[in-house]
Amino acid sequence: MSLLGELLNTLFERRYPRTGRGAGGGDDRSLPALAADILGTKGEVSGLALAGEVLSKYNTLEDDRKLEFFTYLTTRMNIDAQAVRDRLDEYEENPNEETYRAYAAAAEPPRQELIRRLNRLPNGTNALVRMRADLLRLSERESALQALDLDFLHLFSSWFNRGFLVKRPITWETPAHVLEKIIAYESVHSIDSWNELRRRLAPEDRRCFAFFHPSMSDEPLIFVEVALTQGIPTSIQSLLAEDRAAIDAADANTATFYSISSCQAGLAGISFGNSLIKQVAADLMAEHPGLETFVTLSPIPRLAQWLEAQDIALDSSDPERTRRLAAHYLTAAKSATGLPYDPVARFHLGNGAAIHAVHAGADTSENGLRTSGGAMVNYHYDLGQVEQNHERYAATGEIRVSAEVRSLASEVGGPV
Amino acid sequence: MSLLGELLNTLFERRYPRTGRGAGGGDDRSLPALAADILGTKGEVSGLALAGEVLSKYNTLEDDRKLEFFTYLTTRMNIDAQAVRDRLDEYEENPNEETYRAYAAAAEPPRQELIRRLNRLPNGTNALVRMRADLLRLSERESALQALDLDFLHLFSSWFNRGFLVKRPITWETPAHVLEKIIAYESVHSIDSWNELRRRLAPEDRRCFAFFHPSMSDEPLIFVEVALTQGIPTSIQSLLAEDRAAIDAADANTATFYSISSCQAGLAGISFGNSLIKQVAADLMAEHPGLETFVTLSPIPRLAQWLEAQDIALDSSDPERTRRLAAHYLTAAKSATGLPYDPVARFHLGNGAAIHAVHAGADTSENGLRTSGGAMVNYHYDLGQVEQNHERYAATGEIRVSAEVRSLASEVGGPV
Amino acid sequence: MSLLGELLNTLFERRYPRTGRGAGGGDDRSLPALAADILGTKGEVSGLALAGEVLSKYNTLEDDRKLEFFTYLTTRMNIDAQAVRDRLDEYEENPNEETYRAYAAAAEPPRQELIRRLNRLPNGTNALVRMRADLLRLSERESALQALDLDFLHLFSSWFNRGFLVKRPITWETPAHVLEKIIAYESVHSIDSWNELRRRLAPEDRRCFAFFHPSMSDEPLIFVEVALTQGIPTSIQSLLAEDRAAIDAADANTATFYSISSCQAGLAGISFGNSLIKQVAADLMAEHPGLETFVTLSPIPRLAQWLEAQDIALDSSDPERTRRLAAHYLTAAKSATGLPYDPVARFHLGNGAAIHAVHAGADTSENGLRTSGGAMVNYHYDLGQVEQNHERYAATGEIRVSAEVRSLASEVGGPV
Amino acid sequence: MSLLGELLNTLFERRYPRTGRGAGGGDDRSLPALAADILGTKGEVSGLALAGEVLSKYNTLEDDRKLEFFTYLTTRMNIDAQAVRDRLDEYEENPNEETYRAYAAAAEPPRQELIRRLNRLPNGTNALVRMRADLLRLSERESALQALDLDFLHLFSSWFNRGFLVKRPITWETPAHVLEKIIAYESVHSIDSWNELRRRLAPEDRRCFAFFHPSMSDEPLIFVEVALTQGIPTSIQSLLAEDRAAIDAADANTATFYSISSCQAGLAGISFGNSLIKQVAADLMAEHPGLETFVTLSPIPRLAQWLEAQDIALDSSDPERTRRLAAHYLTAAKSATGLPYDPVARFHLGNGAAIHAVHAGADTSENGLRTSGGAMVNYHYDLGQVEQNHERYAATGEIRVSAEVRSLASEVGGPV
Repeated sequence: MSLLGELLNTLFERRYPRTGRGAGGGDDRSLPALAADILGTKGEVSGLALAGEVLSKYNTLEDDRKLEFFTYLTTRMNIDAQAVRDRLDEYEENPNEETYRAYAAAAEPPRQELIRRLNRLPNGTNALVRMRADLLRLSERESALQALDLDFLHLFSSWFNRGFLVKRPITWETPAHVLEKIIAYESVHSIDSWNELRRRLAPEDRRCFAFFHPSMSDEPLIFVEVALTQGIPTSIQSLLAEDRAAIDAADANTATFYSISSCQAGLAGISFGNSLIKQVAADLMAEHPGLETFVTLSPIPRLAQWLEAQDIALDSSDPERTRRLAAHYLTAAKSATGLPYDPVARFHLGNGAAIHAVHAGADTSENGLRTSGGAMVNYHYDLGQVEQNHERYAATGEIRVSAEVRSLASEVGGPV
Repeated sequence: MSLLGELLNTLFERRYPRTGRGAGGGDDRSLPALAADILGTKGEVSGLALAGEVLSKYNTLEDDRKLEFFTYLTTRMNIDAQAVRDRLDEYEENPNEETYRAYAAAAEPPRQELIRRLNRLPNGTNALVRMRADLLRLSERESALQALDLDFLHLFSSWFNRGFLVKRPITWETPAHVLEKIIAYESVHSIDSWNELRRRLAPEDRRCFAFFHPSMSDEPLIFVEVALTQGIPTSIQSLLAEDRAAIDAADANTATFYSISSCQAGLAGISFGNSLIKQVAADLMAEHPGLETFVTLSPIPRLAQWLEAQDIALDSSDPERTRRLAAHYLTAAKSATGLPYDPVARFHLGNGAAIHAVHAGADTSENGLRTSGGAMVNYHYDLGQVEQNHERYAATGEIRVSAEVRSLASEVGGPV
Repeated sequence: MSLLGELLNTLFERRYPRTGRGAGGGDDRSLPALAADILGTKGEVSGLALAGEVLSKYNTLEDDRKLEFFTYLTTRMNIDAQAVRDRLDEYEENPNEETYRAYAAAAEPPRQELIRRLNRLPNGTNALVRMRADLLRLSERESALQALDLDFLHLFSSWFNRGFLVKRPITWETPAHVLEKIIAYESVHSIDSWNELRRRLAPEDRRCFAFFHPSMSDEPLIFVEVALTQGIPTSIQSLLAEDRAAIDAADANTATFYSISSCQAGLAGISFGNSLIKQVAADLMAEHPGLETFVTLSPIPRLAQWLEAQDIALDSSDPERTRRLAAHYLTAAKSATGLPYDPVARFHLGNGAAIHAVHAGADTSENGLRTSGGAMVNYHYDLGQVEQNHERYAATGEIRVSAEVRSLASEVGGPV
Repeated sequence: MSLLGELLNTLFERRYPRTGRGAGGGDDRSLPALAADILGTKGEVSGLALAGEVLSKYNTLEDDRKLEFFTYLTTRMNIDAQAVRDRLDEYEENPNEETYRAYAAAAEPPRQELIRRLNRLPNGTNALVRMRADLLRLSERESALQALDLDFLHLFSSWFNRGFLVKRPITWETPAHVLEKIIAYESVHSIDSWNELRRRLAPEDRRCFAFFHPSMSDEPLIFVEVALTQGIPTSIQSLLAEDRAAIDAADANTATFYSISSCQAGLAGISFGNSLIKQVAADLMAEHPGLETFVTLSPIPRLAQWLEAQDIALDSSDPERTRRLAAHYLTAAKSATGLPYDPVARFHLGNGAAIHAVHAGADTSENGLRTSGGAMVNYHYDLGQVEQNHERYAATGEIRVSAEVRSLASEVGGPV
C-alpha cells in the first residue's frame, strides 16, 4: 500500500481499528506522550492520525497499563487550579470574549478535550464507551479515578442525550448481528437459544424496542421486551411458555414490560430506561387503541437477602406468606439514603410507576426461587399519573402503592 | 384531544414545533422564568414539556425580545465567580468525587446545561442551530453576548464533531425536499432553476456530496460540487455551460471542486469544509483510479476591492495584467493578522492546498467581473502534501504557490 | 476492455442499453435474423447476448424499419396453422406430457417466446413497453399488426398483474428523478413548474400515489392526486389555488381524486386505475378515520364536442343551463356500443362509481372552457356500492346517477 | 367488523391468507365451482374475493382433495379441441384482430387464465408456487396431471424470468427470518446451528448470494455459498472447520462455490443456478481483482451407487483407487439419454464448467463416505470458456475434462 493509501486509510476508514493491522505499530511513543500530542497538534489530519494511534495502542494494553493511562489522565491532564483562578480574575475584571474564552479553557480539564478529539474518529464513540467500561471496572480499586469518570459521564450525557437517540423495533426481521447482541445483553430472563429469541420476537403478541445512537448503529443501548396480554400476568413462566398460544394483538388490553436490559457497561449512570418505557407505552397506545393498562412483571432481586438479614426465611410453599413478605419488603425496606432498598423498585418507582400487585409462584426458576422465593411484582405505569408520581418521589421519596399491596403489607405486623 | 394525548404529544412527537398549534399557549410564564424552571425540575417529562414551551415561545418572539432572552442567559445564567473559587478551594483541599463534581458544576455557566436540556427535544438540535443564527445576527450589536456564543460554539463543536457526521452523495435521485435546500444554500455560483440543478447533478461527470448530522437528517450542513474533467478547467462558464457534452467518468483525470457552500448560519465557526473536501477526494480516488489531480476552480471575491483600496483598477479586457494582479494579490495581500486577505484563499490554504494557477476571463458573470475582473484561481489539493502544507501554514503562515503563479506575481513590481 | 470484460458486460450490466456504446455494432446481421437466432440458441449467455443485440439494433431504427420488424414478427413468427392441427390431432389421440407440450408449443406464435426472451434482459421490460408504444403508434396504419399487439397485451397482462405491482406514495420527499416524471406524465391538469408540483405534494391535505413495477422501479405506471377536503369541492381552480390555506388532514371528511394519469403509452389496455383508486381509498380510510366521502372532481372532455354535433352551443355565462346540459350529456350520450360517450365517465362508471353532481364554472382554464364550457363532475366512489355498481354496469350497462343530476338532466326536454 | 371493513380486508390486505381467520368460511361452494366462477366474473373486486376463497379453501384440503382439484383443472379446464379447430379455421380464413383473439383464447386451456387470476392476489405467487409443489408431490401417482404441470411451468418461466429476479447478498447482517430459511433450505452440507451459519456468513473470506423474486421478497429462490481461498480446496471439512483462520479477502486468488441449494420445490424445472453462479462470479471478479480461479467443491452423490451396480466397492482407505474410480465415473457414466449419470455433474457441465480435479478423503462425513467413499470433485468455471463449453455440451453432449482427470480415468481399464 502506498504512503498516500496509508494516509487515507488512517483518515477515512469507516471501521476502526482493523484487527491485527499494525495496531500500535506506527508510532512507538508512549500512550501519554501521544495523548498529549493530540492536544498540541493543529492539523486535523495529523490529529486524527494521532487519535487513531492512541486508541490502537490503548486496545493492546493490559489492565495495569490501562490503569496507568487513566491515572495519567486524572493527574496530568487535570485542571491547573492556579490558572483557573488567574483566568477567572481576569474575566471578572474585564469580561469580554477573550477573557471568557481563556477562563472556559482553563476551567475544564484538558482530558475532556482529549476525549472529544478521540470521539472524532470513525467508531470513536464506541471505543470511548468501552474505555469507560474499563475505567469503571478498574476504578473500584482507585477512587482517585472518579474525577475522570465524572468527565466521561459529563460528555456522554451530552452525546447520548435523548434527542440524539433513535428508537427501533427489534423483531424477527432484525439483522442477525444485532439479534445476537440482544441474546448476549438480556440480563433479566436469559435467552438460551435462537428459538427462545424467536418466541420473544416473532409472535403477534410480542414486541421489543431498543434505543440506538447513530454513531453506534449496530449496538443497542437498552431494550425492553413487551408482552401484549389480556389482563395482568402473574407468572413469568406462563408468559414465556414454549407451548403457549399467541393472541391477536388487537385483542390485548394490557402491555406488560417483562424485561428491560441495559447493554453498555460504559454508559452506566446515563438513564435511558425511563424514556424508553414511556415512549414505548405511548407508541403502543397509539398503535393499539385497545390497550388500557401498562404494567411490568418484575423480579424482586433482593427480597431473600433482605429478609435473611432479619432472620426471616422465605418458604415458597406458602404463597400467602410470601406475598405478604414481598409486599412488606417493597413498601418498607429502605436503603441508607431513604430510597427503596430494591434496585428494580428504585428504577420503576423513580420513573413514576406504582406498586400494583405481588405474586407468589411467579418465577419458579432456580434463580427466582433463590432470590425471591418465587415472588414477582407488577409496577403500574399509569400514563396520566407517572409524571406527578415521579415529581413527588423525587421531592419527598413518597411512593405509590395500590390498596391491595398496602393491605397485604400491613398484615406483616410485629414478628413475621 | 385528551389530556393524556396532549401530554404524549408534547413528549414524543417527532416534529417539533407544530406550526400554529398552541405555540407558547400552554404556559404564560415569561421565557426566562420557564428557562430557569427547566434547570430546577427533576422530572424528565416535565423537563421536556418545559423545554418544549421554551422553544415554542422563543419562536414567536420579535428580535428585541430574543435579544432580551440572550441577555438574560448571558447575565443571569452566567457563572458565579465566588462559587467557582469556593468550590475550587474545596476541591484542592480535598480532591474527591464530591468536590470535583461540585467544582465542575460551578465552573460551567448554567446556560450550558439549559442548552443541553433543550437539545433533548426532538428537533431540538435544529432549533438550537437556528437560535444561534439569531444570536450571531443580533449580537453584532451587543458584544457582551459573545460569551453566550462561545458556549454555543463549545457545545456545537462537541455535537457536530466529525465522528457524528454522515457524508451522503447528492444526486438527481435525492429527495426533492433536500434538493430544494441545495438550491437555496448554494452561495458561490447560484442555481436558478431545477433544470440548472439537474445539470449539476445528473450528468455522469458531475458529483455532489454533503455532510449531514443524524439529528437534522433533512438539513445539509455543507456541500461541495465536483466536476470530473480532462485537465484543469479555466472557466466556470465553460464548466457549467448548458450545452456542454458530458464525458465518461472513467475518462476523467481531474476532479474539480467548483463550489463549496456552508448551509447553516448557526454553525459558523465549526469547520467541516476541510474534512469534506479531503474525504470526497479520497473517496473519488478510490472509486475512479484514473483521477490524478484534485483542484478547485475558485472565485477571488475581494480582488477588486483590495486593488481599489490601492487605487488600482481592474481591466477585464487585459487578461495578462489581470492574471498578474490576481497572482500578486493572492500571494501578497495579507490581513492584519498576517493571514491571506482573501477569505477563500484563507480557507483552502488553511486546508493545506497550494495556489496552482490563475485565469483571466474565467468568470464573466456580472458578479465575477465586478469582484475580480473575471479572474479565478485553482487551488491544488495534492493529497500527499496537504497535511504537511497545513501544518506549516498553521505554524508559520507560509503558503504554497506554484512556480508559474509566483513568477506572474513577481512581474508586479513597483506601481502596477 | 478484455474479451472477458466484454462478455461479462454483455451479460450482467444493470442498465441496458448504454447510449451510443457500439449499439448495434457487434453483429451486422439483420434484426429479423438476430431475432430468429434467439429462438434457436440453447445457451443462456449467447441468448442474452443476442437479445441485447436485438434491442440495441431496434433502438437505432427509423419508424419505417420498426414497421418492417413488426411486420416480420406478425407474418414470419406467426403460428403455423397446419402444425397446430397436427399437434392437436396427436394430442387428442394420445393425450400425454409429450403431445401436450408439442401442442402448446405449436399453438402459440413463436414471437411470444421471443418477447419473453427479450424480457430476460436487465431493463428488458421497460424496453418492451416502449416497443409496444411504437407499435401502437405505427399500427394505426397497419391493422394486420393487431395480432402482434394482442400478443404483447397477453404477456403484459401477465407481467403487470396486480399482485406484482407496488403502490408507493409520491411526496415532496420522493427522489427528483421520479418527480420529474410526474410533471411530464400529468395529463389532466398540467404541472407547469416545480413550485406547482410542491403545492400538490407537500401540504398536509394533499396526497399522491402511484403504482410501480419492480422491474421498472423508476417509472410510475399510473398515479392519482388526492385532495383532503371539508365537503365536496366544486372548482378545480379553488382546489389548486396558489394562495389557499391547507387544512389539517385530521379535519378532512372528504377525499377528492382530482387527477389520474396513465404514464406508459405501451401499457394501454391494461387497467390499473380501478385498483389504484380503490386501494388508495381503502388506505386513506384506514389512516384517516374521519374520511366519509370519496369522490372525484373530473373533467367532461367531450361535452362541447358532442353538443356541437347536435348544434347546441355552450354558454359559460349561463351556469344553470351549462349544468343541465352537462347532466343531460353524462346520462344520455352513448357511443355506438351503448356505453357512455364520455371516456372519463366510462372509466369511473366502469369502476362502479356514480355520477354525483355537476358544476358550472368549475374549470375556468382555457381548456376547460373550450371543451366543457367550464363544467366538471363529481363521480362518487361509495365503497360499499362500487362492486355491485360495477357488476351491474358490466352486465347491463346501467349507470348510477344521483337524484339531483337525474333531475337536472330531465329538465332538458325537447330542444335545448 | 363492518361489511365494508370485510370487503376492504378481503381486497387489500397484504398478507394472504390469515391463518385461522374464517379460511374457507365465507362461501360454501365447492372449490371447482369457485374456480369456474372466477373465470366468469367481470368485477375485479369480486374476482379477487373469489380468488381469495379459492386459495383459502385449497389450503385447508387434504391431499386426496387436492388431487381431485388438480384433476378437475386437468380435465374440465382443458382446451376444447373442436373449438380450437373452429377458431383456427376462422382465423385462417379471415385473419384479423377478432379472429386472432378468439383463436388465442381457445388455444390456451382456461386453467392458465385461472392461475393468472390467482396470481393477482397479494402473496398469490407464493401460494401458487406451493400449489405446484403439491402437484409435483402428488402427480407422481397421476401422469395425467402432467399437462397441468406444464401449464404451471409455462407461466412460472414467464414470471420468474431472469429480468425479474434480484440478486442479494446473504450476510450475518441479513434479517433473521430470511436466515432461518437459509438454514432450512441448505441441502448439500447441512447447517446445524446458528453458530454454524455465522461461520459461513460472517468471516471476511466467506460470501453467500441468493436470488429473490419481488413478489416473494422473504423467500430465497436459490442460494450459493462461496469461500474465498488461496488455491483450490480439496476437503470440505477443512473448508468448514470451526477453528480455521479466515484470510483477508484481498489475499484470495480463488472463489470456491461449495454449496448451491434450490429452495422452492414448486419451482423445479426453472433453472436459476446457471445465472446465479455466473453473475456471482462476475461480481466477485469486479470486486476482488485478485481472484483468478472460479471452481466448485462438489459432491459426487451417485458414485457408490453406480459402482455398486457394477459390483465395484469403494474403499475409502485407498485414496488413489478412489480418485481413479471417481474420475472414471465422472467421465464415463452416462444416463439413458447420453448425458452424465451424476446429477451434480449434469448441472455444472451443462452450465459450461469443466471437470478439473478429483479428491479422495474430501468429504469424510457419514454421508460423504457412504455415497462417494469420501471423494469430491472441483468443477472449473473458466469464464472465458463457459459459454463455448455450454454450447458444445448442448449440441453434442461433449464434456470438458482436465488432462489430470482424464489421465486418472484412463488408468481404470478392464476390471477395476
